[in-house]
Amino acid sequence: MGLVVQKYGGSSVADAEGIKRVAKRIVEAKQNGNQVVAVVSAMGDTTDELIDLAEQVSPMPAGRELDMLLTAGERISMALLAMAIKKLGHEAQSFTGSQAGVITDSVHNKARIIDVTPGRIKTSVDEGNIAIVAGFQGVSQDTKDITTLGRGGSDTTAVALAAALDADVCEIYTDVDGVFTADPRVVKKARKIDWISFEDMLELAASGSKVLLHRCVEYARRYNIPIHVRSSFSGLQGTWVSSEPKQGAKQVEQALISGVAHDTSEAKVTVVGVPDKPGEAASIFRTIADAEINIDMVVQNVSAAATGLTDISFTLPKTEGRKAIDALEKNKAGIGFDSLRYDDQIGKISLVGAGMKTNPGVTADFFTALSDAGVNIELISTSEIRISVVTRADDVPEAVRAVHSAFGLDSDSDEAVVYGGTGR
Amino acid sequence: MGLVVQKYGGSSVADAEGIKRVAKRIVEAKQNGNQVVAVVSAMGDTTDELIDLAEQVSPMPAGRELDMLLTAGERISMALLAMAIKKLGHEAQSFTGSQAGVITDSVHNKARIIDVTPGRIKTSVDEGNIAIVAGFQGVSQDTKDITTLGRGGSDTTAVALAAALDADVCEIYTDVDGVFTADPRVVKKARKIDWISFEDMLELAASGSKVLLHRCVEYARRYNIPIHVRSSFSGLQGTWVSSEPKQGAKQVEQALISGVAHDTSEAKVTVVGVPDKPGEAASIFRTIADAEINIDMVVQNVSAAATGLTDISFTLPKTEGRKAIDALEKNKAGIGFDSLRYDDQIGKISLVGAGMKTNPGVTADFFTALSDAGVNIELISTSEIRISVVTRADDVPEAVRAVHSAFGLDSDSDEAVVYGGTGR
Repeated sequence: MGLVVQKYGGSSVADAEGIKRVAKRIVEAKQNGNQVVAVVSAMGDTTDELIDLAEQVSPMPAGRELDMLLTAGERISMALLAMAIKKLGHEAQSFTGSQAGVITDSVHNKARIIDVTPGRIKTSVDEGNIAIVAGFQGVSQDTKDITTLGRGGSDTTAVALAAALDADVCEIYTDVDGVFTADPRVVKKARKIDWISFEDMLELAASGSKVLLHRCVEYARRYNIPIHVRSSFSGLQGTWVSSEPKQGAKQVEQALISGVAHDTSEAKVTVVGVPDKPGEAASIFRTIADAEINIDMVVQNVSAAATGLTDISFTLPKTEGRKAIDALEKNKAGIGFDSLRYDDQIGKISLVGAGMKTNPGVTADFFTALSDAGVNIELISTSEIRISVVTRADDVPEAVRAVHSAFGLDSDSDEAVVYGGTGR
Repeated sequence: MGLVVQKYGGSSVADAEGIKRVAKRIVEAKQNGNQVVAVVSAMGDTTDELIDLAEQVSPMPAGRELDMLLTAGERISMALLAMAIKKLGHEAQSFTGSQAGVITDSVHNKARIIDVTPGRIKTSVDEGNIAIVAGFQGVSQDTKDITTLGRGGSDTTAVALAAALDADVCEIYTDVDGVFTADPRVVKKARKIDWISFEDMLELAASGSKVLLHRCVEYARRYNIPIHVRSSFSGLQGTWVSSEPKQGAKQVEQALISGVAHDTSEAKVTVVGVPDKPGEAASIFRTIADAEINIDMVVQNVSAAATGLTDISFTLPKTEGRKAIDALEKNKAGIGFDSLRYDDQIGKISLVGAGMKTNPGVTADFFTALSDAGVNIELISTSEIRISVVTRADDVPEAVRAVHSAFGLDSDSDEAVVYGGTGR
């Protein structure tokens, strides 16, 4: 008998029918001989509706009170889910984040989990109950106030509970069949990945893949909790994310390339006419950091010898663009530059796979594929297991398809491209 | 500087506008130099909507989970109210029943408060905050589960907090101007009562007056907390309910008669042909009690000497009628009676006032007024400070108006009727 932590998102429990369907699936896991803890998000659009209400009352609602308000959403879905399970003849108890022992810091609206003390959950499942836990919420260690975990919070709740309960697996139920080699809306021939390592999944998440958030994968890797991402609408096996392919399961050979991710949520800022001397870049990025803006890629152009001036470009979330420009303009005299250029019509394409570490040919093939597709590259950034390029936003779909196909990831390919032995 | 506990019902906070209006009123109390604790119910129809959702999922939702579900309602209203107050430039913090220290027994859906430990509320108001507290909810002492207090629970929360905080007054805000000498929908000339004793208010509440529930008044009397019932829509003084008329305030002379209450929610059961011998009544009412049915008035008719049989009638809530008839039919052989009659077309009219204790004329005048109005009396029951009669339901409005007028309670009367000295 194992212990399974499951997580169901808002789209899976959008209405009474959805809640009944999820209840059946939870009961199946129990009937298969497992202890089951199910983490649940707020129903469908509840959170957005509550935010609307808050804005009607106050344009800038206080963080503490906004958290109190939003946590009402999971309270509704988790109580209804427990009722639906009991109707199926199984015992169930719902627990708030606080009752489940999800202890956080005091940063309202984006609190971080600092401890999980799941004593009540443990007792509940040991007594034979199915435990339903509110995702996305906790209680602050210092003030005992209710907190929320911010974006992707319910996934993180599930992984954190799985770690604290030493669960066998954390199943993340969603509205897609798993993690794909590319976004299936862009690449029709994208394939579901059966298994992917934590490291590759982290790079995909950082590069724009939205199925799992970086934060949740990071937590799972730290505590070595296998994640199984799967659909709440089908009974199919999804994608396993873990340190090693699951023993006993169908032996999965790790592809050298895991997938292609893309991201069109970023913009590019170019600082034009910067004196090419030590300390210049530092003063630019100090300014950005002081404004609490996270940047992604950075490139410094080769200096034009005649002028002694250079350009520095970086990318950042579009939502932070205005703030970055304002901060730089304010420090223009101190930094010393000619002008700023802002471009929000860019896109990023990333190729991720542990295989590229030992295969220098990957980078060349990546650029060849883009070139053959007529895609111009504006910026390049690499890690040991990832290559990312910035292109025009309009070029992104074609670029993703070209790369996906070039690396043999298309579903009608016989085999993924294998480097190494073949000498290619 | 005083400490004021205020309570706002669901109709006062039905939408964003209502919440802003209530926020202004709370801030006024704070600006008048008071520490303020505001207890709030769920917005408008929220509770009914949540019950609807529960019924879609399960026809008989478990008590524990229904309480978890319903408490989401106050969570929403209290967080929004705190935001609205902060928008007005004052500090506010919202607290759940559990955070406010409302400790209850474990009877879900109708828990009773067994202790209030308002340490966090005290700290919050001492720090200069306005504390907003969820009404209607608490946490069970034994299981630490979330509970709800059932009907009138928010009023009880407010009174209990006022007692625990040693507040100067508990203000119950509602959609009427206070407690009236009769239901203003029935008696156009009904007058608002400026002051009424706990005892008279208890009798009015037990006799059908709906402004304050019996349970809340009882709690206030036990801890001697003055209640001020007033409108959240006007700035008018409402009705004070306390042990003594407020000192320093306009000297209020206690009327001998406080008011006329009526109730058409009861039905009458007559057990026909009961042997007139010891133990018969006991076996009837043992049967009713075993079915957990509360009865109100009881009358045994004079025995018809020729047959040695008598009839016994009692009244009970209409909602319990079916259960009572079933229980009696089941025990028909054991009890020994001819037949049952069930009548749900009855009404009860009650005259309440401490004055009648020492004025035997009141009863006679009451019957004369009813007789003059052509109203037939079916049952009579009295306490030291109340007379109640059962009539046809159709006669109730006319009977209430007649009695109200006969005792000088009409708003165009010069003076309430005074007994005693005048020898009348």
